[in-house]
Amino acid sequence: VIVISAEEARTWYEEDDPVHGLDHVLRVLGLALKLGEELGADLEILKTAALLHDAQGAHPGEGEDRLSHEQASALFAAEVLKEKGWDESSIHDVQHCIRTHRFRGSERPQSLEAQILFDADKLDVMGAFGAARTIGYAMQAGQPIYSPVSDQFLETGEPQAGESHSAYHEYIFKLRVVRDRLYTEPARRMAEERQVILETFFEGLAAEAAMSAHVDP
Amino acid sequence: VIVISAEEARTWYEEDDPVHGLDHVLRVLGLALKLGEELGADLEILKTAALLHDAQGAHPGEGEDRLSHEQASALFAAEVLKEKGWDESSIHDVQHCIRTHRFRGSERPQSLEAQILFDADKLDVMGAFGAARTIGYAMQAGQPIYSPVSDQFLETGEPQAGESHSAYHEYIFKLRVVRDRLYTEPARRMAEERQVILETFFEGLAAEAAMSAHVDP
Repeated sequence: VIVISAEEARTWYEEDDPVHGLDHVLRVLGLALKLGEELGADLEILKTAALLHDAQGAHPGEGEDRLSHEQASALFAAEVLKEKGWDESSIHDVQHCIRTHRFRGSERPQSLEAQILFDADKLDVMGAFGAARTIGYAMQAGQPIYSPVSDQFLETGEPQAGESHSAYHEYIFKLRVVRDRLYTEPARRMAEERQVILETFFEGLAAEAAMSAHVDP
Repeated sequence: VIVISAEEARTWYEEDDPVHGLDHVLRVLGLALKLGEELGADLEILKTAALLHDAQGAHPGEGEDRLSHEQASALFAAEVLKEKGWDESSIHDVQHCIRTHRFRGSERPQSLEAQILFDADKLDVMGAFGAARTIGYAMQAGQPIYSPVSDQFLETGEPQAGESHSAYHEYIFKLRVVRDRLYTEPARRMAEERQVILETFFEGLAAEAAMSAHVDP
């Protein structure tokens, strides 16, 4: 089959979007290939799925009412690969990886390649890059870096009246538990250090916010 | 004198700018008052200077060719305080704090209040908030989270041809040495934990970038 090159992928992603742009996709590619080599996965399927997994907008507000970004990207992938003469079965394998890579998605990854893509994508919401991208996403969505988390949000994930969603909320709701959702052993191993960085950063935010609070005299 | 309230300061800052917006100013206020109480500073001067210190645009590209943001904010402060009937000497004290708060500025803080404002402002470029704001500033300026640092940049602070400035560059050039520039002892004490978080975060970026690099097969 004709594979996709990282060069070709450049045309699908924004160079200057630090959250879901080209840099993120290339890091996911690198991590996926590393995991794939260790686990003996089909690297052609994996590489192709990694390069296409966010090709159709994973930005704030996009794809929420309409087709979700993983569904839209899977359809886009089929178009691209059909044009390159890929067979139906391989296209299906790539699509399965893309459709199931999302943490909040409804469909779970079944194939080894899909589980690896899921894990590689999740490793990039952990660690320093995960923290940085979460700050970036909050900025794109007009949300603050930090705002206090209510007991209701802690228990249910639903903000109470007047509570603004912040990057810290995303950590409480999702980032800090992503590690427990990883599928492969080498990804869980790579997640150890990233979990420490993630907790250091976000618990640091909460501590510093408390330390810099003031009472209007 | 009639003091400025945090409520009044709201009108000078953007609510949704996580880098130099209202949240930053209120954290600097909180830190400055904490340091000022411990060191016996004039809290009225300090509070007023903190609330006004970035009132005239500290955004990428702003105030670089024209008046620098600390000069412009000092002029703005004088206008505001004259209108409130402040005496010239107090206005001068506030202006000195504002003019000397900048790391890259040419004038150094001489009064206790100016040294405290400098330190409070610098504590907010350290730690988790410092890391988050540096990511935010890079996004505002269209710069990446991370790009490799050349030997030339390490030695001189000048990028070599084709080297893009990233948030990581800002850490190498400025953030990691800010601690050594603090003036007051309690600020240096508060900087300890923040230095650890800063290094953990940015060294994490470099390590994760290396780990997720790929060679195009």
